[in-house]
Amino acid sequence: MNYITQDKLVILGAAGAIGSNMTQSALSMGLTPNVCMYDPFEKGLEGAAEEIWHCAFPEARVTWTTDIKEALSGARYLISSGGAPRKEGMTREDLLKGNTEIAAQLGKDIRAHAPDLTFGVIIFNPADITGLTTQVHSGLAPGKIGTLAALDSTRLQSALAQHFGIPQDQVENCRTYGGHGEMMAVFPSRAKISGAPLTDLIGTDRLSHEDWEKILERVKQGGKRIIQLRGRSSYQSPSHQSLLMVKAVMDGQGYPWPSGVYVDDPATGFEKIMMAMETELGPEGLTWSLPEGDNEEQNALRESYRHLAKLRDEVIAMGVLPPLEEWSRVNSNL
Amino acid sequence: MNYITQDKLVILGAAGAIGSNMTQSALSMGLTPNVCMYDPFEKGLEGAAEEIWHCAFPEARVTWTTDIKEALSGARYLISSGGAPRKEGMTREDLLKGNTEIAAQLGKDIRAHAPDLTFGVIIFNPADITGLTTQVHSGLAPGKIGTLAALDSTRLQSALAQHFGIPQDQVENCRTYGGHGEMMAVFPSRAKISGAPLTDLIGTDRLSHEDWEKILERVKQGGKRIIQLRGRSSYQSPSHQSLLMVKAVMDGQGYPWPSGVYVDDPATGFEKIMMAMETELGPEGLTWSLPEGDNEEQNALRESYRHLAKLRDEVIAMGVLPPLEEWSRVNSNL
Repeated sequence: MNYITQDKLVILGAAGAIGSNMTQSALSMGLTPNVCMYDPFEKGLEGAAEEIWHCAFPEARVTWTTDIKEALSGARYLISSGGAPRKEGMTREDLLKGNTEIAAQLGKDIRAHAPDLTFGVIIFNPADITGLTTQVHSGLAPGKIGTLAALDSTRLQSALAQHFGIPQDQVENCRTYGGHGEMMAVFPSRAKISGAPLTDLIGTDRLSHEDWEKILERVKQGGKRIIQLRGRSSYQSPSHQSLLMVKAVMDGQGYPWPSGVYVDDPATGFEKIMMAMETELGPEGLTWSLPEGDNEEQNALRESYRHLAKLRDEVIAMGVLPPLEEWSRVNSNL
Repeated sequence: MNYITQDKLVILGAAGAIGSNMTQSALSMGLTPNVCMYDPFEKGLEGAAEEIWHCAFPEARVTWTTDIKEALSGARYLISSGGAPRKEGMTREDLLKGNTEIAAQLGKDIRAHAPDLTFGVIIFNPADITGLTTQVHSGLAPGKIGTLAALDSTRLQSALAQHFGIPQDQVENCRTYGGHGEMMAVFPSRAKISGAPLTDLIGTDRLSHEDWEKILERVKQGGKRIIQLRGRSSYQSPSHQSLLMVKAVMDGQGYPWPSGVYVDDPATGFEKIMMAMETELGPEGLTWSLPEGDNEEQNALRESYRHLAKLRDEVIAMGVLPPLEEWSRVNSNL
């Protein structure tokens, strides 16, 4: 088996559906044989690790541990799906506090045990904010931590392909930016349907305004729809797309979707935030540029930014993130 | 993305944990972009299919259907995990009858809609018997239907590697044959631990007889142990190993583990059965030979055969399989 690298990849939350899928897929996609599974839930972790061993991947060196120091030591890559899910009776604020506290601790653990991390992907909700929190506390440079933002775009691509009855890859340049899910900013102006501009089709017999609105709503509720259909949260597509992000850093072959990245650009007014921009992903991590779009799209992006900034400020008020003016002291790379 | 083939692969039971994992993995392992997901549970099937679409595999042509004719038409490969699980209050016989009836119908459906099938893998329990039932009713030649038998061997390999604290692939020639799980016949005489014969180590300080018995028991109960640890049946390793079987037929690069295969060899006394033998898996499907082993191992294999033959005879008595003397009339290839 040809693996891209021998570097250590840590999967945090490896006992869960996403994390165990990621471990299997990292090996079957040939990323690295050196995978460490971490989860505080020891019993489930052992069960997931046994499953991976029973797959018998050639040359695999799969380890598992409940000790975060052991997990992170020597790690060059990590993906964390290890947040707590929202439970009955929990408010949105409870979830935000709980998961950003996990993210803050992860950032501190990275600083202590994996300061040479090449790239990390944060995918537990709300990922824009947990990713930002990890970035600040990790001490790492911008671009070394990213969040999974592709699923809004791939869901839009899927919904359009199904509407038009065409193969998925005939829907090109499908792009959403900003925050994930309900906060997303859709950029339809450059999308093409079998080569034809999508915006030329909206409002015609082929795609009425009503149908377009329905598609957008379906994409925004994409995660909820999976829960309704499967009785559980989406886990396969987050796993696969997160691994493609790591793969792009490992092999330098690029990644075709927008990612969430640390943005601090007073010139454009997007400051101290993590959000999906037009991004490139390579051996040095993420770099970003402002997406091209018309006024309506740019306004949607700014609105998405304002929403994220409000969430960020809530987390600062909770004491989980330091006040903005202290960020460069906590992380000299910011 | 380079796929091995463009031929149609059908995943039966695609709404389930195994089947949806197989669909994702078939694509990420690059087997074929042409995957059809079949399941009678429409809602779950749509949810699983949506997840796969959201992965956005390049060039993928993933379809899903609850119509078995549509699923099988034009199929060259199939894997079926689509049996019913054992439910509260169900006897072993209830499960045997229910799942072999599903297998018999699958065989008839293959005969009607996919007579040119290149290779099919049956993995729902008891797989030796459901595979046999599918083989008989399908009309296909021996070797075109196989069952997943590797997990006993990979579990033994894993347990030995963990006992000796060595990487998994330093345990070589780990082999179990015959029936799956509690019916398995272990062949330790050719296994090597970092190059040393396993049988030289059994009964020494490095591996006491007691520890060896514990390891064997753990392997026999491997499936149950996953349920205890994870709260659910094993689904990742069955998925991965089944796909490797299909991959071997697609790419001709071989498959390193024993598979269940149709065996009818009066000379050796193994007649009209499906069981794991030493097998080769290539573009024409499975061929088998009698495993090498000492008397004790050969006796264990015969005992496993007798157990399977008894189950087969129960299924004949249920009317799901025809009497042995009618098999060649039902399937002229047998």
